[in-house]
Amino acid sequence: MNDLTVAIYGLGLIGGSLARDLRARGFRVLGFDTEPSALSKALEEGAVHGTVAADGEGIEEADVVVLAVPVPAASSLLARIAPHVRGTLVTDTSSTKRGIVAAALAAGLGERFVGAHPFAGDHRAGWSASRQGLFLGCTAFLCPTPDTELAALERAVEFWRDVGARTQVLEATEHDTRMAWLSHLPHATASALALALSQSGLSAARLGPDGCDATRLAANSPRLWAGILIDNADAVDPALAALERSVGALLEAVRRRDEAALERLLSSGKRWLDGE
Amino acid sequence: MNDLTVAIYGLGLIGGSLARDLRARGFRVLGFDTEPSALSKALEEGAVHGTVAADGEGIEEADVVVLAVPVPAASSLLARIAPHVRGTLVTDTSSTKRGIVAAALAAGLGERFVGAHPFAGDHRAGWSASRQGLFLGCTAFLCPTPDTELAALERAVEFWRDVGARTQVLEATEHDTRMAWLSHLPHATASALALALSQSGLSAARLGPDGCDATRLAANSPRLWAGILIDNADAVDPALAALERSVGALLEAVRRRDEAALERLLSSGKRWLDGE
Repeated sequence: MNDLTVAIYGLGLIGGSLARDLRARGFRVLGFDTEPSALSKALEEGAVHGTVAADGEGIEEADVVVLAVPVPAASSLLARIAPHVRGTLVTDTSSTKRGIVAAALAAGLGERFVGAHPFAGDHRAGWSASRQGLFLGCTAFLCPTPDTELAALERAVEFWRDVGARTQVLEATEHDTRMAWLSHLPHATASALALALSQSGLSAARLGPDGCDATRLAANSPRLWAGILIDNADAVDPALAALERSVGALLEAVRRRDEAALERLLSSGKRWLDGE
Repeated sequence: MNDLTVAIYGLGLIGGSLARDLRARGFRVLGFDTEPSALSKALEEGAVHGTVAADGEGIEEADVVVLAVPVPAASSLLARIAPHVRGTLVTDTSSTKRGIVAAALAAGLGERFVGAHPFAGDHRAGWSASRQGLFLGCTAFLCPTPDTELAALERAVEFWRDVGARTQVLEATEHDTRMAWLSHLPHATASALALALSQSGLSAARLGPDGCDATRLAANSPRLWAGILIDNADAVDPALAALERSVGALLEAVRRRDEAALERLLSSGKRWLDGE
């Protein structure tokens, strides 16, 4: 057995998959979930060895603490558990990083905190969707605080590589701006499409493979994603505004029956996709 | 060997896959493509047995004629080949159906024509992308003209079932309206997203799995899709306008930092997707 103990708050898709991977690699895993059935299933299936408390009791034993809960919950949790932290590293898994880095500093955990965002796509959620190997080959962005100690950063790199991820250290603001375009905008776009389609009078069962591809991300949790988009609102705003202009430009070309202009617009998008 | 001869104009993804399927089922297949290399490869690989001419010479032998070319080309081709048609059925494979049904009537082929749209998704194109089994389990929409004879419609149903498709007979205007929402809008959305992302200053190589899902359809041929969107412009217009309003509503909620309103919008889209 590996001699490290990891405490994981939140045993959903991300936290649950982490628990399975770490356990398989010989770590001692302690878990917590506000949903008692997720916690009991994780214990029954042997993915976690024991539990920690909502207020942080029990994490004194943990070398690494992971908060795998949505952004707003993670910030208040940090403040609550701070007095119990003894380990080298506190990290999280949320999609935005400025807020949580600020919360870690406010909780007095700046030296031990490294925000993490494993960029692994899956539109399902919850313990039942978790699986071993979710992070294989994905990129985990690591965002230190201004006070993060080298030992904590090294531990974070090692931790994510242990579960198969590539790591990339990135300043939190840079991370959030990048994600606004590359992840949050695609999610918002799929939701806008589903919202438009809900006005068609047609059933989603009639969607072909193309329509399913384009709307897939809109199946994600509205609560989780509303939280992400608002948390990153100032970076999401210009990205959504660019989308609004792009849709407007396509609509304008369709209304003018201007096939050449439309082809130029479609080509611009394709050229970017093709890396030209 | 099956005793039917089928002539196929256009040996791209759709026509090429049809040729492979029909040949495997024992049909005699004659082919034509404006791209000589596609035609010679189809002959070499044995997917077609012989050729027909651009002006329709040779299709006198064909029981079924299939136009697997883009909409504008199909309409002029119909007029050109009309004098040579002797078989029961002339059909096509394009994504919009009103224009081609009108062109068939104008060419004097109303009795033998049944427009077809195999709703099979694939973002690649050309002979090299064609494959056996492309239509297995897909829906082929069949749009007769007001003059289509029963024998032609029956032949069309049998023809598409032979290659594994389900068939659904639908009036051309109803088909085009439905496709504007379920297929053309998702394509336009993916292109609008790619166009917006091209203004991010980031490289497409940085897209995660989510971003790849949402932009996949924008990799399609801009020329082909500009043609489809313009051909179906009056039906696409209200669908794109609904998308513009949806994006505007999301942007407005983000700007107001109104998480509850944003969650309601995301939920509306998700409920439609979930069939609620």
